[in-house]
Formats: sequence, structure tokens, C-alpha cells
Amino acid sequence: MNMTLPAEFSLIARHFKPLAAPGSLGLTDDAALLTPPQGRELVLAADAMVAGVHFLPDDPPETIGRKLLRTNLSDLAAMGATPLAYLLTVGLPRGTPDAWIAAFAAGLAEDQREFGLGVLGGDTVSTPGPVHLSLTILGHLAPGTALRRNGARPGDELWVSGSIGDGYLGLAVLQHRLPMDGFLADRYRLPQPRLALGQALVGLAHAAMDVSDGLLQDLGHLCRASGCAARIEAAAVPLSPPAAALVAADPALRQKLITGGDDYELLFAAPPGAAPEIEARARAAGVAVTRIGRFGAGEAQVSVIDDSGAALPPGQGGWSHF
Amino acid sequence: MNMTLPAEFSLIARHFKPLAAPGSLGLTDDAALLTPPQGRELVLAADAMVAGVHFLPDDPPETIGRKLLRTNLSDLAAMGATPLAYLLTVGLPRGTPDAWIAAFAAGLAEDQREFGLGVLGGDTVSTPGPVHLSLTILGHLAPGTALRRNGARPGDELWVSGSIGDGYLGLAVLQHRLPMDGFLADRYRLPQPRLALGQALVGLAHAAMDVSDGLLQDLGHLCRASGCAARIEAAAVPLSPPAAALVAADPALRQKLITGGDDYELLFAAPPGAAPEIEARARAAGVAVTRIGRFGAGEAQVSVIDDSGAALPPGQGGWSHF
Repeated sequence: MNMTLPAEFSLIARHFKPLAAPGSLGLTDDAALLTPPQGRELVLAADAMVAGVHFLPDDPPETIGRKLLRTNLSDLAAMGATPLAYLLTVGLPRGTPDAWIAAFAAGLAEDQREFGLGVLGGDTVSTPGPVHLSLTILGHLAPGTALRRNGARPGDELWVSGSIGDGYLGLAVLQHRLPMDGFLADRYRLPQPRLALGQALVGLAHAAMDVSDGLLQDLGHLCRASGCAARIEAAAVPLSPPAAALVAADPALRQKLITGGDDYELLFAAPPGAAPEIEARARAAGVAVTRIGRFGAGEAQVSVIDDSGAALPPGQGGWSHF
Repeated sequence: MNMTLPAEFSLIARHFKPLAAPGSLGLTDDAALLTPPQGRELVLAADAMVAGVHFLPDDPPETIGRKLLRTNLSDLAAMGATPLAYLLTVGLPRGTPDAWIAAFAAGLAEDQREFGLGVLGGDTVSTPGPVHLSLTILGHLAPGTALRRNGARPGDELWVSGSIGDGYLGLAVLQHRLPMDGFLADRYRLPQPRLALGQALVGLAHAAMDVSDGLLQDLGHLCRASGCAARIEAAAVPLSPPAAALVAADPALRQKLITGGDDYELLFAAPPGAAPEIEARARAAGVAVTRIGRFGAGEAQVSVIDDSGAALPPGQGGWSHF
């Protein structure tokens, strides 16, 4: 871990050393060493998050690092991979309080225990801008088994895990545009990477990705990669009880939930015959899964069907062509 | 590559796709796949750079990405590793001109060709702060052969590659505190990672690291990791011709050159008997190496000896205790 900050920041080293994975050499050398798991393929992803853009500046520091770690874990889940380790660079404004850094690191330590990985290395820098985090994650899987976005085929069923729209509503709650709701706020701050489900879908799903930018937009990416169309039954999209209550009071909200973001659920394609096995494996993984539509032939286009079978007009999310 | 920016930024994808390594899946999936080189240990490092902190906001965009890539390559060089691939996250202010991004990517493409690696994945985000880059590099080496910081022993000779202080002077040139000098400016903007030398030192050097924060400070880290003392002969520290000319005019400058930073040369420890072999291998690697002192028993302490053999007083760099 390269410390390019003034002495006052050496306290950061203290906070991050307890997070060090085997191979990190105690974060004291120029680089870390890693013996790749034998006979496995590595899976790698990197994401950045900026205060005021990807999280709220007054979010509790305990949850900020965890959110970034979990969005990266969600990328591993989407490929069907098992987490291995991560590297983290942290940009902090001068004068960031010691207590903030301690809480940030404590949150990461909690998630490291929960998801079974540690930090291999990184860097801590000072910035005149807002808090700026960047995380690279490594996972592994059996060679050639990665779930990709490009395998959906006409006739496949379209599935989604968990519930959709909670992250979007959680942000509204935290911005005081909706009444306080702890469940929704948590869904925004602490996504649940569907690692066990992703691993269980290997060999069963034809394609998968995680929903980060909104169900419709991300499904459009999947259709484009696979070269087929998709149709969603709006009423089938699974909602959590708080989201369902809000939609009951304001039906127009349903569209916003499927174009909002920050879901970090898995979206996947599987042949109809696989449904019983998918449901059994999802149960074993402890995650609900719901069939919400179907893939069809034709150009990459997503349509949304209402209760009566009529196609909803493309909305702000622009869901007809991607 | 996860694009969380508005549509105007999708141009970034165009600029970065040509940089994609095999296994990056064209930067279209949630993560990249990498088959680790068989029977090799992986070496990983991450560094961040912020405009106005680690580079000058008006540095040419062609050199900014290359500097970050090269500082990470220098970390690989210090361990004796061979480059494999990298992941990059880029935070850009809204309204960053297309031409800036194109030039930034073109610089990276040039270094990818020079150093033989490609980008596996990453993220591009918008920031209200200055340009903020984070890069994670992967390299590989034979298991158990990594050069570490903790192997120096009393009696070992202290070596350094290339010349010291050019980065420090290059920054002064670019800040108009010294007359323009293209060589020095280049040494600040485009460090030369000593990859061939690092690989050639495996099995020969007892310890190595790269000099990023200043020769004295970094030697202090090496002494602390190795549990021994070191003594530098100030006059032996190799200077480039422009640096030597400046020191001839202002002898007090020598101390600043050995406490300045941004050298990205290799500092290493080797037994006296290894000197002929080190010189032969360095010649083969096309890099000058110079013996500048010796390690001794005792607590981790660095002393600097002048021409007459007298110890220089500890200066601003604080070189007696680390």
C-alpha cells in the first residue's frame, strides 16, 4: 500500500492493515502476491464511487465501503464466480476525521467476514474533491463456465431475483422525498450480492447480468449482447411489501421502479424446461426468483405489457430501443 | 465496463474499447475473465492519481494515463514481475472534452504496445472534483521468487538504477521554478519502469523496492522491513547530466534530490560478491546501476556521508529515524 499522504494520514495504514488478506504482505511491499486457485479461471471487475454521485455525502461511513464492495461482489455473482480478494484505492479530502476512516474500515471488515475475502493492496490519496473510492475485485470459477450476457435465445424465460425498485425508493427515502422506511434505506445503502444464486445458475442459465442501472436499461444491454428481443409483464415484476404498498397508492410509480437503478439483483435467461430446477436451486440459495417475461426473435428491443396485455408506451427510461 | 455516466459520456466506451485485452469480453460484461499463466504466482498493485496532487492539471492528457500505468509497472518491476494486464477507473468532471479523452486513451494505447499489456475492465464515472484515476495492475513471476523489501542484510551493498532527482527537478521545471528542460520534464511525466532490470535481479538481489517517495524515505522503509541500518555516500548517488549541472551551481540542491520523489528507479540490496553479475545483467537490461552505500547492523537508520566522510545532519527529509 503506497502512502502518498502527509504523516497525519499514516493513521489510515493502521485502519487498513487489519483488513489485509494473506498474500498482501501486510500491505508493506510494492505489490501483493497471489497464488491463483489451481485449475480455476479468474474473474475481475472494477468500479468507482464518488460522494454525491453514487452515494450520499452523509451516508454512514460504515456503509459506504460496503456498498462499493457489494456492487463489485454483485458483478462476480452475475458471472457465477466465488469471491477471492480485492484491491482498494481511497481518495479522501484533507481533514477527514479519524473516526470517519475507522468507521469506513470497520464496515469493510464486517463485509469481509460475511463474504469471505480480504484486501490485497491499494493506495490512499488526498483529494481536493469529494470522497472517491475505486475497488477492483477478483473471483474465480471453473474454466469456461462463466455466465455471460450474450447467451439468451428466443423462447428463453426471463427471470429476476429478489425484488425490484427498492434501491430507487431507498434513495428517495434518504433524500426525504418519501417517509422514512428502514428496509428501503438499507436496500439503497447495502445491496445484497446474489453470490449463491449466481453460482447455482452456472450450467443452467443461458445468460445473466446484475441490475445496476435499472431493469429495463440493463435488460436492453442483455438483449443487444444476445441479439434477441424481450417482453416483460409489468405486473409480474416482484416488489417488496413496502414497494408494493407505494405502488398501490400510486400506480404510475411502477414504471419508475423498473427504470430506476441500484437493484443489484440478478437478471437471467433460461429455457422453460429449467424452471423447476431453477426454483429448487434458488430455494437452496435462500433467494426468491420470479419469471417476469420471455425472450423472442427479432431486433434487440424490450417491451412492457400491462395487465390487459397491452404494450405500455415507452417512457422516460426509453425502453423500446437501446 | 460499467458505464454510469449520462449518454454524452458513452463516447468514452469508444475510446476505451480499442485498449481491451483478451479476456476483457470487449468490456461489455459484468466482469472480465483471465486464465492465470500456468504455474506462476500473480503480483498485484493498485495506485490512484488526482489532478493537482499527483500530476499537473495542465499536463498533456497523453502522458497522464501513461504516468499512472508506469508507476504501477514500476511496482511490478520492484518485485521482479512481468506485466499481464490492468483495470482502470476514470473519474472525469462533466464537460471533459472528447479530445481530452481521446488523447488520454491514445497515450495508454502507446504504453500498452510498449509494455505488452491491455485493459481487462474498469469503470468511468462523473465527478464534481478534479480528474481522478485509479489503476490496478496484474503481473506474474515464478512462485517464491518475488523480490521483497525485507531481505537486506548487514554487509549488503546498496544499489540504485538510473539517476536520482530528475522527477523532482522535472516538477520544478513544469512549475516554472527552473528553466525549461525537456529531459527533466519528461522524467517527471513519463517514469521509466525498470522491468527488465527487476526481472534480472531475481535470485541475485536480497531486497528491492522502487523509489517513489524519495530515496531517503524509501530506503528508510527498506531498512525498517529488513531490520538493519544503511549508509549512503552522497557523492555516489547518480545524477543525470542536467541534474549534475544544477548541483554544480547549487551544492545544497543535492540534499533535495535525495529527498524528492517521483524517481521510479529501483533501490536494491545485494551481497558484495554479486557486483560483477549485477553489472552484467544491468548492462543486458540496458539500465545503468550504481553502488551508493552499504547496509549495516543496528536499528533501522539511514545516514548520509559527504565527500570527507562526515555524516550530514538530518535534513527536512528526516533521514535519521523512520
